[in-house]
Amino acid sequence: MKRVKVGLLGCGTVGGGVVRLLRQNGDVIRRRTGIDLSITSILVRDPMKERPDVDDDLVTTDPRHVVSNGCDIVVEAIGGIAEARAFIGEAIERGKHVATANKSLLALCGAGLFDAAAKRQVRIGYEASVCGALPIIRILRSGLAAQRVTSLRGVLNGTSNFILTLAGEERMSFDDALAIAQSKGFAEADPSLDVDGVDAAQKLKILAELAFGTEIDFDDIEVQGIRGIDSAAFERAAAHGQVIRHVATATRGCGGIRLSVVPEFLPASDPLARARYEENCVVIDTDAAGEMSFYGKGAGSLPTASALLADVIELART
Amino acid sequence: MKRVKVGLLGCGTVGGGVVRLLRQNGDVIRRRTGIDLSITSILVRDPMKERPDVDDDLVTTDPRHVVSNGCDIVVEAIGGIAEARAFIGEAIERGKHVATANKSLLALCGAGLFDAAAKRQVRIGYEASVCGALPIIRILRSGLAAQRVTSLRGVLNGTSNFILTLAGEERMSFDDALAIAQSKGFAEADPSLDVDGVDAAQKLKILAELAFGTEIDFDDIEVQGIRGIDSAAFERAAAHGQVIRHVATATRGCGGIRLSVVPEFLPASDPLARARYEENCVVIDTDAAGEMSFYGKGAGSLPTASALLADVIELART
Repeated sequence: MKRVKVGLLGCGTVGGGVVRLLRQNGDVIRRRTGIDLSITSILVRDPMKERPDVDDDLVTTDPRHVVSNGCDIVVEAIGGIAEARAFIGEAIERGKHVATANKSLLALCGAGLFDAAAKRQVRIGYEASVCGALPIIRILRSGLAAQRVTSLRGVLNGTSNFILTLAGEERMSFDDALAIAQSKGFAEADPSLDVDGVDAAQKLKILAELAFGTEIDFDDIEVQGIRGIDSAAFERAAAHGQVIRHVATATRGCGGIRLSVVPEFLPASDPLARARYEENCVVIDTDAAGEMSFYGKGAGSLPTASALLADVIELART
Repeated sequence: MKRVKVGLLGCGTVGGGVVRLLRQNGDVIRRRTGIDLSITSILVRDPMKERPDVDDDLVTTDPRHVVSNGCDIVVEAIGGIAEARAFIGEAIERGKHVATANKSLLALCGAGLFDAAAKRQVRIGYEASVCGALPIIRILRSGLAAQRVTSLRGVLNGTSNFILTLAGEERMSFDDALAIAQSKGFAEADPSLDVDGVDAAQKLKILAELAFGTEIDFDDIEVQGIRGIDSAAFERAAAHGQVIRHVATATRGCGGIRLSVVPEFLPASDPLARARYEENCVVIDTDAAGEMSFYGKGAGSLPTASALLADVIELART
């Protein structure tokens, strides 16, 4: 049995999910992989807050303590940019592997962090940054390693898909659908990143860089949100047996790689049309195998935690 | 650049695909992974047969030559049991990693081969044995490593699904549909393994062992073929908005794990109903992320070759 110690930055929806899932499935992980994962310390903002799943002794407000306290792997689940970047940088500097769910950070300063990690010979796992529990990063990096991707399309944001599904299937207004998404915990208080397409574009950048093996400038992605779609558009779609989806697309053409996140009318038979409510979907076309499609929950506490722990296991294995 | 030498056993549909795909995508693989794969020798039955893609100097009829000729990894693409088992055993004995597409071999004597490999500290990749290009083995082993699978369902045989799709959607007879499947190269001259469910059951055993982390006795799988389905059944299905699929199921219940491969009536909304013609589909339910579904080409020269090469790359990486 290989004992591996994990320092956890953050204990909110995602970090709390990591604690809960490790408690729930630690035995399965041990049996399957021979790896015994334990959390050595947890960074929180408010140490007095009640956390039923968490051992109080592990809680700290000092990020240095988490990344230095004899841990082997650091899990970043605080979100945001400045602090997350600093703490991950510190962890790398100290020779720790890192697993993160932070797509904004990767989209903004991933290259610098990957360079730093390569120099210190540690790795950054980021399965959780795109499509939650769906192991799309592994699929692209390892599963399709011998295939040439010709195009990639996805429904990458659960919140905007939830709203589009309600608006399309139940003729609900944007505002009402958003309110339900917020009450279910999918949408943030400020849903701009989701409904304006920025979140999906950040994920698309990560996926397309893997799929096409090249660096992509975020500003080259055409981004159009879903706020402006009026009810007449949904009626028109329904009349033609179509649905509206917020589609992220990356294609390689003569002029290079084209990327966009825009609302599209799709026939009901389109694989992306089948992604309903908060579900994510990625459709990949390759030279060797044609079209493959992948569906799963793109967000949420345990789905995202499961992807972080999958990375922790992989980082611990090698 | 890491140079890795591959010995190839077999140069038929699958082995020939490996040669072709490596020629086609060797540059992508080098750029993405830093690994330069080259084939050192190829076992064939008839060395005089014309093979436009193959360098004549590499061809041999001596399996010993392939597994010993300074190669690092052996790819088994001859199929069948006795010879494949002997050659893989020999490769392992000589300390070579192995990649194989041979599901029958794994279902019949996988345990012994994995034991032998563990003793010699080499590994056996078998992504290509189930669902062709769809990286379902990686998804289960690595992507879902932190999740507890509660059930797994699949359409795992492209031939029987092709026949059921034609019979259901175009009211074609079993024999006519089979003839078309054979003319397209999906079905073997003797289609028994496909249409009687044995092929799907072998794949189900491999997937369920990974999903549930336990060894499964092939004889415990309830297997029922699709030959007996008459046209009235397809009419009844259509009248109820249903389709018939040859469904492989593994569920964990109170009495242990139950496995079956049987034809089922499914509503059109079932994820498995969406797998049409030769497409494969796997639907996995887990404690952490609910339902995930995966679709892709389950067989064919390049899809299977792409899975073998993905394994070769992974074996070469570590």
